[in-house]
Amino acid sequence: MRIFFVLLVLLPLASIAQPSVKASRDWVKKEGPNILSEFRDLLSIPNHASDLPNIKRNAEKIKKMFADRGFDMRLLEEPGAPPIVYGERKVKGAKRTLCFYAHYDGQPVDPALWKLDAFKPELYDKAMYDGGKPIPMPKAGEPINEEWRMYGRSASDDKAPIIAMAAALDALKTSNIGLTSNVKFFFDGEEESSSPHIDAYLTKYGDLFKDITVWLLVDGAVYQTGDPSFKFGGRGVTSMQLKVYGPSRPLHSGHYGNWAPVPGQMLSHLLASMTDKDGNVLIDGYYDSVEPISDFERDQVKNAPNIDDQMKEELGLARTEGTGTLNERMLLPSLTIRGLASGSVEDKAANIIPSYAIAELSMRLVKGNDPEKMMDLVEEHVKKEGWHIVRDEPDHATRMKYPRIVKITRTKNGFPATKVKMDQPEIMSVINGVKSFTGDRAVFLPSSGGSNRVNDAIFNILKTPAVSVNMVNHDNNQHAENENVRIGNLWYGVDLMSVMMTLPSDIQKK
Amino acid sequence: MRIFFVLLVLLPLASIAQPSVKASRDWVKKEGPNILSEFRDLLSIPNHASDLPNIKRNAEKIKKMFADRGFDMRLLEEPGAPPIVYGERKVKGAKRTLCFYAHYDGQPVDPALWKLDAFKPELYDKAMYDGGKPIPMPKAGEPINEEWRMYGRSASDDKAPIIAMAAALDALKTSNIGLTSNVKFFFDGEEESSSPHIDAYLTKYGDLFKDITVWLLVDGAVYQTGDPSFKFGGRGVTSMQLKVYGPSRPLHSGHYGNWAPVPGQMLSHLLASMTDKDGNVLIDGYYDSVEPISDFERDQVKNAPNIDDQMKEELGLARTEGTGTLNERMLLPSLTIRGLASGSVEDKAANIIPSYAIAELSMRLVKGNDPEKMMDLVEEHVKKEGWHIVRDEPDHATRMKYPRIVKITRTKNGFPATKVKMDQPEIMSVINGVKSFTGDRAVFLPSSGGSNRVNDAIFNILKTPAVSVNMVNHDNNQHAENENVRIGNLWYGVDLMSVMMTLPSDIQKK
Repeated sequence: MRIFFVLLVLLPLASIAQPSVKASRDWVKKEGPNILSEFRDLLSIPNHASDLPNIKRNAEKIKKMFADRGFDMRLLEEPGAPPIVYGERKVKGAKRTLCFYAHYDGQPVDPALWKLDAFKPELYDKAMYDGGKPIPMPKAGEPINEEWRMYGRSASDDKAPIIAMAAALDALKTSNIGLTSNVKFFFDGEEESSSPHIDAYLTKYGDLFKDITVWLLVDGAVYQTGDPSFKFGGRGVTSMQLKVYGPSRPLHSGHYGNWAPVPGQMLSHLLASMTDKDGNVLIDGYYDSVEPISDFERDQVKNAPNIDDQMKEELGLARTEGTGTLNERMLLPSLTIRGLASGSVEDKAANIIPSYAIAELSMRLVKGNDPEKMMDLVEEHVKKEGWHIVRDEPDHATRMKYPRIVKITRTKNGFPATKVKMDQPEIMSVINGVKSFTGDRAVFLPSSGGSNRVNDAIFNILKTPAVSVNMVNHDNNQHAENENVRIGNLWYGVDLMSVMMTLPSDIQKK
Repeated sequence: MRIFFVLLVLLPLASIAQPSVKASRDWVKKEGPNILSEFRDLLSIPNHASDLPNIKRNAEKIKKMFADRGFDMRLLEEPGAPPIVYGERKVKGAKRTLCFYAHYDGQPVDPALWKLDAFKPELYDKAMYDGGKPIPMPKAGEPINEEWRMYGRSASDDKAPIIAMAAALDALKTSNIGLTSNVKFFFDGEEESSSPHIDAYLTKYGDLFKDITVWLLVDGAVYQTGDPSFKFGGRGVTSMQLKVYGPSRPLHSGHYGNWAPVPGQMLSHLLASMTDKDGNVLIDGYYDSVEPISDFERDQVKNAPNIDDQMKEELGLARTEGTGTLNERMLLPSLTIRGLASGSVEDKAANIIPSYAIAELSMRLVKGNDPEKMMDLVEEHVKKEGWHIVRDEPDHATRMKYPRIVKITRTKNGFPATKVKMDQPEIMSVINGVKSFTGDRAVFLPSSGGSNRVNDAIFNILKTPAVSVNMVNHDNNQHAENENVRIGNLWYGVDLMSVMMTLPSDIQKK
């Protein structure tokens, strides 16, 4: 597979004149090997949310890391759930409270796919796909190349931010630079399992979160060009399964082929009716509830560097769906066939007429789209195409009555898009502060293409602004095997956390 | 699953006045327990074509069975292939030579799906799906119920015919009834693996087959009503795989959903363009090469009992494809999606845009359809729909050049339909002889829906007429788990073999 690596050019960014950035860089230069060592220790603890003993080891370690750095730390608990590692430091006279969010759990690991033990992190001299080889950890005083990468589960997603926050606190302390906001930490332990207890946590411990001015969700990758990026919401998400029925048992494709309905063919007609060949959704009303984009948001999207050619080259695509750039397309709901199955393929293919065919649909939603109503629209379309919808396996009478039967299973885990008004004072204060560091290179987007239940919960329960702050490289294999973080991005994260912890105090506490 | 069992009403058929039928029934009544015992022994030998040691045990046993009954038996051999068990008995003054074909190999067994050991056959008091339970084998003199079933691999497909032939020889001998034709046996050991050596065998041992007047291919199930059935050819078959491409690696469905092309959606459009919603193939020329059906054949199809309502009820179908009955639809080429895959479904479904989607197409062909030309028509259609066809995984330059890429893999194992002229004298002689036993209830069809390479090889290499003779029940789970034969059908087979071995000598040897 050809991979097109775009040189990450995060550093040097704008004004190193800022004392907090100077502090960060001095610290990294001096203490880099120790930072990587602490990072490796944290990555060594397995962290799938279902592995509660190890999850608790992670939580205790993180609690101690920040307690050692002068924070009041505690574990918030819900029965059977990974704890939230919560911490705070009040700053005398601060008019603003920033809550730094990250998650310490990771995606499941399939060891067969990894080149190393996912929980025995290793340093590489460059990206594996670029021919990188493992190298020893640097000793005190040894220089560190920014193209090095740390490999291991959650190296990028999402333990790098936790290390960056800790290092930023050390750097600022060493240079005697005080925080300018009250700072809270909220480290989630089940984000990769869709944070099923997030509502319960935010409700039960609501008092701890009342005074937060802005949540900084430090998760996700910087812009594909390598430029810093910030996102002010996420798309919603929901999913449906469509199962269509042929004969009640698989049939010999000779004895019944050309007579018994073929479920794969029926499903193809149904799916093809939902989009045109360019990928535009043809379901009535699918785009109708999309809330208008503000001029401010539209400008931000317009100002973001166009990465379409780069990504098409990287992904081997001669065309993309619909019209518009990748960033523009993220402002519309999607309808993706994430799975298809009927009978068997490749060396298991048998000469049968399968008895059913399944399509798994994933729908990403934007502001204005209600998950239930969007699924209703799909169902109305399905009915208009002549299908009878059932919720359970059809019985014989149903089979004999309706020529086209589809069982539709709607997920119960969908949630709507979140979009924080970008130009409100609390947010502008953060943007302006960050811009003093990044200059004009920073990309501010109204929404991530992805979805995050935490974002939704903060928005709905706490009604507090949140912004997604990205620091890791985009080619980090997040969720997949051989996850990694580029060291230059880790260092950028230390700078960024330092800057955000020392933003000018230009707004009133709400 | 509801199963609609149609009472099999094969017996009593017409004239029991025929001495050979009386001989058969007397023998079965007296020797039934011994016949079942010999049957069980034969079924106990594993018989997948790739298991050469056991295949040879089967062959040796069958060779001995018929040598004991006065036939000149030998094994025909090809290196690395299961042997053909060949035998003959010349009859003084006979003007016709009948070759009885059956196969002693079986489909692979998936033990996890079977309720019993596939090679430890068991007798049941009725069909499993009807609540049947295992019963002991009957002792000498004990009555045998025709609704009993013998379960085991190849009970129906295709060892029952071999036992029926052996029992018929015993019955005729006991009643001192002589054969009226020279009789040959040809027992194939790799039919379920598509008889890859059949051409080699028929060519290498051509001299043994020169004098055959008609081949009787005793394989397959009686008509779904339970009436006797005979088929005069089989559909051809071929298959193709279509693999369409999205992004070169699976993508996060949030970050790229609505921008990156979705291979499942692209494939749906392509597949939907190939048929209308009723299942009629829309590919240009797909039906053009179909040879006209003769009036005689059309009459036979018309005269066959209409089983569409019964089969729709049995299979839970409110509609069928196109227009016409099941039997009429078998006279046209089919295009079946036998397999579909993209990403994952059910509990493995992940929120990704898969990088490819696969469709496996099976095409059953009728007389006039050339397998290669039919695949060419599909490819021309694919091109007309705007796709670029490749034969290997597309490289980066190809990906960047063509917006719609499909890799097409054509099978090398296709073969055309075979259809023997039904009203030629050699065939009519057999039909008339059989009708004297079955009366008007017998169903004569120009073609099986299924495909058999042996049929094709006999037709092309030997240019000798062949007719497919069916004796087992249609609900026999052939190829699947819990294969079985209904004892009444086994007894019907003994009658039928007796009748066919004593047909009136009303034709000249060719």
